Amino acid sequence: MNWTLAQRAEKMNPSVIREILKVTELPGIISFAGGLPSPQTFPIDAMREASERVLSQDGKAALQYAASEGYAPLREWVAQDLLKQGMNVSPDQVLITTGSQQGLDLVAKILIDAGSRILVETPTYLGALQAFTPMEPTVVSVDSDEHGVDAADLRAKVGTGADKARFVYLLPNFQNPTGRTMTEERRAAVAQLAIENGLPIIEDNPYGDLWFDAPPAPSLSSRHPEGSVYLGSFSKILAPGLRLGYLVAPKALYPKLLQAKQAADLHTPSFNQRVVAEVIKDGFIDRHVPTIRALYKQQCEAMLAALDREMAGLGLTWNRPAGGMFLWVQLPAGLKAIPLLDKAVKKGVAFVPGSAFYATHEEGGANESTLRLSFVTATVDQINTGMAALAAAIRESL
Amino acid sequence: MNWTLAQRAEKMNPSVIREILKVTELPGIISFAGGLPSPQTFPIDAMREASERVLSQDGKAALQYAASEGYAPLREWVAQDLLKQGMNVSPDQVLITTGSQQGLDLVAKILIDAGSRILVETPTYLGALQAFTPMEPTVVSVDSDEHGVDAADLRAKVGTGADKARFVYLLPNFQNPTGRTMTEERRAAVAQLAIENGLPIIEDNPYGDLWFDAPPAPSLSSRHPEGSVYLGSFSKILAPGLRLGYLVAPKALYPKLLQAKQAADLHTPSFNQRVVAEVIKDGFIDRHVPTIRALYKQQCEAMLAALDREMAGLGLTWNRPAGGMFLWVQLPAGLKAIPLLDKAVKKGVAFVPGSAFYATHEEGGANESTLRLSFVTATVDQINTGMAALAAAIRESL
Repeated sequence: MNWTLAQRAEKMNPSVIREILKVTELPGIISFAGGLPSPQTFPIDAMREASERVLSQDGKAALQYAASEGYAPLREWVAQDLLKQGMNVSPDQVLITTGSQQGLDLVAKILIDAGSRILVETPTYLGALQAFTPMEPTVVSVDSDEHGVDAADLRAKVGTGADKARFVYLLPNFQNPTGRTMTEERRAAVAQLAIENGLPIIEDNPYGDLWFDAPPAPSLSSRHPEGSVYLGSFSKILAPGLRLGYLVAPKALYPKLLQAKQAADLHTPSFNQRVVAEVIKDGFIDRHVPTIRALYKQQCEAMLAALDREMAGLGLTWNRPAGGMFLWVQLPAGLKAIPLLDKAVKKGVAFVPGSAFYATHEEGGANESTLRLSFVTATVDQINTGMAALAAAIRESL
Repeated sequence: MNWTLAQRAEKMNPSVIREILKVTELPGIISFAGGLPSPQTFPIDAMREASERVLSQDGKAALQYAASEGYAPLREWVAQDLLKQGMNVSPDQVLITTGSQQGLDLVAKILIDAGSRILVETPTYLGALQAFTPMEPTVVSVDSDEHGVDAADLRAKVGTGADKARFVYLLPNFQNPTGRTMTEERRAAVAQLAIENGLPIIEDNPYGDLWFDAPPAPSLSSRHPEGSVYLGSFSKILAPGLRLGYLVAPKALYPKLLQAKQAADLHTPSFNQRVVAEVIKDGFIDRHVPTIRALYKQQCEAMLAALDREMAGLGLTWNRPAGGMFLWVQLPAGLKAIPLLDKAVKKGVAFVPGSAFYATHEEGGANESTLRLSFVTATVDQINTGMAALAAAIRESL
């Protein structure tokens, strides 16, 4: 039996990270590789109580088919919550998605034709590339620095006519993979040029609530509301296993996203939406999220201290994230991350080689000497042990 | 702000049914329109107990990210359960999906290029057309009768070379919208020609467990295992609000479907998968599903009796389903279903005009005089009242 595959299927490839994680999540390995939130932050008791209340008080509705737009009280909560990011949106603009990954899939479906030019940061979130690829875009990487995407290079790459970029995809807060955050100045410049050029922004913000000392500057979407789709998630502030996210779209675009959503899975599970609406209805998020911030800040500081201690004199550089789950390391010139990973795993520690996160692979380029470290899954003790092991692997490789 | 939409977005349209349901689900309307399972069949107590056990015993894993393939015990249960349909598959061939609607989306992504020829029954499931449309196929309707798709017409429409059909989409058991079931003889003929012509089959089976007196004949996939993707669902045997379905694919095709799944929503909610695995682990389905069958059989008989009684002499014909949720009515020549719906709603009863389910719309064709009736959502009393109202609307229209 010969199956004839669609062209787009030929372009889909196994996730590099997925393959790496298979190796690195072996028992006994301390993993800085995965992007898994710390399970000690999951509000299990609140979920138990909410599940019981939803099923006993409203079980038939929670288990029935429901509207593709999502559960009204949850959409209202999202609209209200976004005020703190300077976004003034109606619940009618909120579409509940099956994780924010689905938001990327829906955006790709309605905005990308085969060959369409789309712009991404350097490096960028791998899952977004995976969601966009099946629609066969031409992905263009925009230069970026420690403050995010470079406004001048973005302006230069907007394109014109049929070659005009369908959108730029940006992750302004505590970015995956780098942990970097766009400054106020950079946001203002990017929003300004997007407005001037009619360039749509797809703004992905799964980590924005995980700030350590101060919230990040207002969203890009708040500055370019008619030209932005904003993606949010409950994965990092409650739990990822619920697969609950949302998008916010201008009214002109919402109906097409809704039709794509309906065709994709009819609606996000009603049960999950009602349980989460029940968990969060009385200010739970405002009490719960500060405990996640405190934990992740402590773990980030432990990792930074371990880097300072273990990597002294080895020629590495790294950033100091102001929130989120990840930090980004530049190895000394000539030391490549993929062969280093083999050595590191043998010593019991794992990370993700940074080259996985570049849309455009440059053989022998500087991106081969980068790596992403997650500071949220391992404990402080594991961070200390793992970082010593990583330093040993680096010393051996130099 | 002008958004440039993808070509496929231009082809996407609001669901006709969705628009109809907005009218027909007004308070006070007896609806035979929706495809909603009866909520009295939802196992609320079993769900409460299972949710409590999953969260108390295994909460961290249930709320964490998980494998895109799905939860292993659930995949094993599915493989085991399919033996009763004559399918001998490995759990490695099972992919858990966010409802079986997602299975249609994944199949479309990996098998349909713009312009690809795909074959469907006449009439067919509207949600499948919505899932396929964004990938821009050429949809060809195959003649069908009360036993399902016509084998000779299917053979004639397979096509050759670049125009060869990528697949035929079939719903052999208690089909949506007609309620019809493929006979053993028809299944054998269709499987035979599919094998001879190397024609892939996408077999959708959400209703197969809902038989009244005897289970349907073995699946098409059991006859053509290397050339079939089988879609199943927990929506009709447990509850649709969980959005839990699955697909079974030959090993040659599975990796691409898995990559498409990962890009679409990373994985189906771990919480829902574990709760359902907990509900069903000790033979629950074998005790529970007979109660759904008995209820739906009783409701179907009530609707058939009401049709016999109320429609006598009006020139309508209808089928007698052997299971499922729907039956199919042919109005007398010249009486069209869409204007009839307006009259019916004024009298307090609703249905779905059959023309919504045809891939190829034929102005003035016989399909404009068909309608789908669901017998599972309304009670027996409502069925009696609603059918008298529908008869009155028909009498007024003749």
